[in-house]
Amino acid sequence: MRATVMHGAGDVRVEDVPDATLRDATDVTVRIVLACICGSDLWPYRDLAPSEDGRRMGHEFVGVVEDVGAEVTTLRRGDLVVAPFLFADGSCDFCHEGEHAQCRNGGFWGGVPGSDGGQGEAVRVPFADATLVRLPVAPDDALLPALLTLSDVFSTGHYAALCARVRPGVTAAVVGDGAVGLCGVIAARRLGAERVIVLGHHADRLELARELGATDVVTARGPEAVEQVHELTGGDGAHAVLECAGQLEAFETALAITRGGGALGRVGAPQYASAPHVRGQFGRNITIGGGPAPTRAFIEELLPDVLEGRVQPGRVFDATVALDGVPEGYQAMDERRSLKVLVRP
Amino acid sequence: MRATVMHGAGDVRVEDVPDATLRDATDVTVRIVLACICGSDLWPYRDLAPSEDGRRMGHEFVGVVEDVGAEVTTLRRGDLVVAPFLFADGSCDFCHEGEHAQCRNGGFWGGVPGSDGGQGEAVRVPFADATLVRLPVAPDDALLPALLTLSDVFSTGHYAALCARVRPGVTAAVVGDGAVGLCGVIAARRLGAERVIVLGHHADRLELARELGATDVVTARGPEAVEQVHELTGGDGAHAVLECAGQLEAFETALAITRGGGALGRVGAPQYASAPHVRGQFGRNITIGGGPAPTRAFIEELLPDVLEGRVQPGRVFDATVALDGVPEGYQAMDERRSLKVLVRP
Repeated sequence: MRATVMHGAGDVRVEDVPDATLRDATDVTVRIVLACICGSDLWPYRDLAPSEDGRRMGHEFVGVVEDVGAEVTTLRRGDLVVAPFLFADGSCDFCHEGEHAQCRNGGFWGGVPGSDGGQGEAVRVPFADATLVRLPVAPDDALLPALLTLSDVFSTGHYAALCARVRPGVTAAVVGDGAVGLCGVIAARRLGAERVIVLGHHADRLELARELGATDVVTARGPEAVEQVHELTGGDGAHAVLECAGQLEAFETALAITRGGGALGRVGAPQYASAPHVRGQFGRNITIGGGPAPTRAFIEELLPDVLEGRVQPGRVFDATVALDGVPEGYQAMDERRSLKVLVRP
Repeated sequence: MRATVMHGAGDVRVEDVPDATLRDATDVTVRIVLACICGSDLWPYRDLAPSEDGRRMGHEFVGVVEDVGAEVTTLRRGDLVVAPFLFADGSCDFCHEGEHAQCRNGGFWGGVPGSDGGQGEAVRVPFADATLVRLPVAPDDALLPALLTLSDVFSTGHYAALCARVRPGVTAAVVGDGAVGLCGVIAARRLGAERVIVLGHHADRLELARELGATDVVTARGPEAVEQVHELTGGDGAHAVLECAGQLEAFETALAITRGGGALGRVGAPQYASAPHVRGQFGRNITIGGGPAPTRAFIEELLPDVLEGRVQPGRVFDATVALDGVPEGYQAMDERRSLKVLVRP
């Protein structure tokens, strides 16, 4: 079969790889219908060391179940399914607590040699009963891009909003106008935030943020951005701040605009090792949470709102490529020509 | 009247100061019955710059209401009251949210020139109706030391446990065997922790920790302490970690022993500016909260358990001085000869 392999920074190839096949009795194989490229795929795209073997890419996909392992009980050949960006056994103590990202037997798609990634023709899915969620639509449904966002980007925005303790009536702020930030806007509104201030630098994305529910937009950077958010919030900052970027500057801004007693939900993978301003966090009773989102824990809850069109996270996609177009998709996202690229193998 | 004034590191004096008097119509004055010295008083005791005026000390006290301002409605002369370590107006949005440490009009006892501290004969109490809580016992009640811990040390341990998300059945760990750490042990057990591991270095305090409910004791430091906690918890660490010390090493240990998906409640005033190991926190979905505890929010909830003897936070006191003995009390705590010193003016 064909799949995407990254051999080093800027070196994304679509090549022949071994077919996805069952390995364990709890596996299924899934033929990919729709996948996409993640903002986090751009980190290795910028700095991955060159290698012959390379790394299989893609961790967001919707597809159709093909082969079914002997111990799989809830899935059948032909089921349309969505996968969270981490597979998980669904049975360990962490999974029972909703902490699927800490699963004792889970892992990232393509994360270990020999495992499949989503940007390809097919994937072997471990712990299939627990990992996958069946979708009650046809594979050609117009909602498929929106449903695909349950894999990662919308569910991750939702996790950021939960970690930021968004609740009805609060003012939320979202740092970052990438796809996760935009989904954070949707999630914050969905959880009842009265105001959602989004901080970003791209006019088109900020326009989309407004359409998705942002009430205020701040385009300044650093201390000026902090000042503007304080002006918008009577000097207090936002109760709930979603940090959806990952750079140190984004974290510093996020902390500085969090209201005393408020919470900062961090889902942008931190590109820094030490967090400054501890005394500011402490003195202002601010809580910081987040991490790789346990998206599997949220899919059932978010699904009805996507199916019934109450939220439209599919709008974060602004381009589509076939499998052979994946390298161009990376380039387009890296150069900020595209916000988020769909892959139709 | 007489009160404690710190004029610089190691320079604590009991001297004549202006009498505590009503200033605002919402004030009362309180004649101090019992006060104490806080571990946090030792920070300035070690590094306060010398000054002529000095700083009024003491933020924990129980006393009897004396003069009552014209707008005070719930307190009368003769009432026995306990004060939280921060006064707060009780009416702003922060106070309504239980974030009294962020009160728009609140402050620390002795925190501004002209305000009174608890280590003295009397105190002017701002926002008296909101700040003080009446105690249904006589001023000579044997429970008075235990009731005094509601001011700060027990309520702060409770806040650490809340921030660490202690809930029934979890394993908690308490970093620090000072008075707050010991109260953290009590609080963690009270909230249902099945195991409470306490980390410290003082045999007598750790013995007391066991009597107060700790199930395990770790006396090692640094990586060795982390290893021992992991051994005690099947390699996972503790769900709920209470950081009750404030040094960088304590924070690093606390983070390293927090289970994936767990929470770290920090109440030791951080003696460091930057928190390392952000990626470890992020990758393990750990939440960090804490700060100066809004103890006023907890007093009514904790009071019955103290009154009925179900918890015994008063055991953290191991010495008593009269007002003139306060300088000796500081010295005893600084030299670790005393755990926590009561002051009976």
